[in-house]
Amino acid sequence: MTFRHVVALQLKSETAAEQRQMIVAALRELPGLIPTIRSYVVGQDAGINDGNHDLVVVADFDDADGYLVYRDHAEHQRVIHDHIAPHVAARAAVQHEV
Amino acid sequence: MTFRHVVALQLKSETAAEQRQMIVAALRELPGLIPTIRSYVVGQDAGINDGNHDLVVVADFDDADGYLVYRDHAEHQRVIHDHIAPHVAARAAVQHEV
Repeated sequence: MTFRHVVALQLKSETAAEQRQMIVAALRELPGLIPTIRSYVVGQDAGINDGNHDLVVVADFDDADGYLVYRDHAEHQRVIHDHIAPHVAARAAVQHEV
Repeated sequence: MTFRHVVALQLKSETAAEQRQMIVAALRELPGLIPTIRSYVVGQDAGINDGNHDLVVVADFDDADGYLVYRDHAEHQRVIHDHIAPHVAARAAVQHEV
């Protein structure tokens, strides 16, 4: 079984490209810090469609408990607090069994 | 290279469970109908967190052209028109290279 967490973020229009790259870089460090992460893909929107969100994360875990370890992990919370939260305009998340 | 399309949907509160299952079932037929789809995972939110969207699709293609074939395919458009669009309260999408 795999338990998947998907989150799409729309950033504020005034958030600079450098800050967007900082968010991506900070997220991509998390698999090295949180051992329950099995797969972690961060992507920035390709600009094909209007009205899209800016970033997406697809993170896979062995089970829901593994996801909860990630969700509540201090390093994840630090990235959210320091890099993401000040810049989020909208957020959409789903967790599900695969 | 993989080109990924992620879309999260929030359905209207009045959308019945049977209709939600119909949406999931209709989406899950698309990989058999659209040959550019390489991987297609549809999930319904597990209910762990408040404020989540209800459904998510993570679809992988060889390249952006493969995604565009899917996006514009008549069977996909039929599912959107017949099953999804009348029930969507909010939508978040991102496409990106993996």
